[in-house]
Amino acid sequence: MNPDSFQQLDKVIHEKSRMAIMSTLASSAELSFTELRDTLGMTDGNLTTHIRTLQKAGYVSVSKRFSENRPLTTCTLTDEGREAFGGYVDLLEEIIEQARGSK
Amino acid sequence: MNPDSFQQLDKVIHEKSRMAIMSTLASSAELSFTELRDTLGMTDGNLTTHIRTLQKAGYVSVSKRFSENRPLTTCTLTDEGREAFGGYVDLLEEIIEQARGSK
Repeated sequence: MNPDSFQQLDKVIHEKSRMAIMSTLASSAELSFTELRDTLGMTDGNLTTHIRTLQKAGYVSVSKRFSENRPLTTCTLTDEGREAFGGYVDLLEEIIEQARGSK
Repeated sequence: MNPDSFQQLDKVIHEKSRMAIMSTLASSAELSFTELRDTLGMTDGNLTTHIRTLQKAGYVSVSKRFSENRPLTTCTLTDEGREAFGGYVDLLEEIIEQARGSK
């Protein structure tokens, strides 16, 4: 059991809702804010707050454009975000293996 | 991708330090407060706070006795705690599989 593993877990990603957002974005090239909100069953306010945290960390980029004369906000993982999420999942897997081994 | 999985993660266990405590206790019958603190490199205050949260949830039991004329505080997982930790790890594993599948 390496106790440092736990502390190395990226706290930006470890929060449950942000794990869900990162995981959903990891499986898509791009998602609209609305699709993401509806997929995750989150409120506008809640999703906005978490997206902002992910943007500040450099993990998600948000772009606004017009589509059929209506504003469209889309979210996508940055390369840095994809790498951080990959590292987070790898570390989580190690922790689970340790936990399984210790049962 | 089932977005509910993330929200089902037990928030008492999901906090990084508490994951570390639960994981460490899961591999031992009983540990003294001092052993736990030193293994995890936590401060007394920090460990006390987290142990209290785990006690309130019914996951950890704490007992005090004397050993060689010195007070000894020990911590152990309750049956409920062991079950909750098992469920948490199972769910985390499902989430990782989903994330791996989506990469």
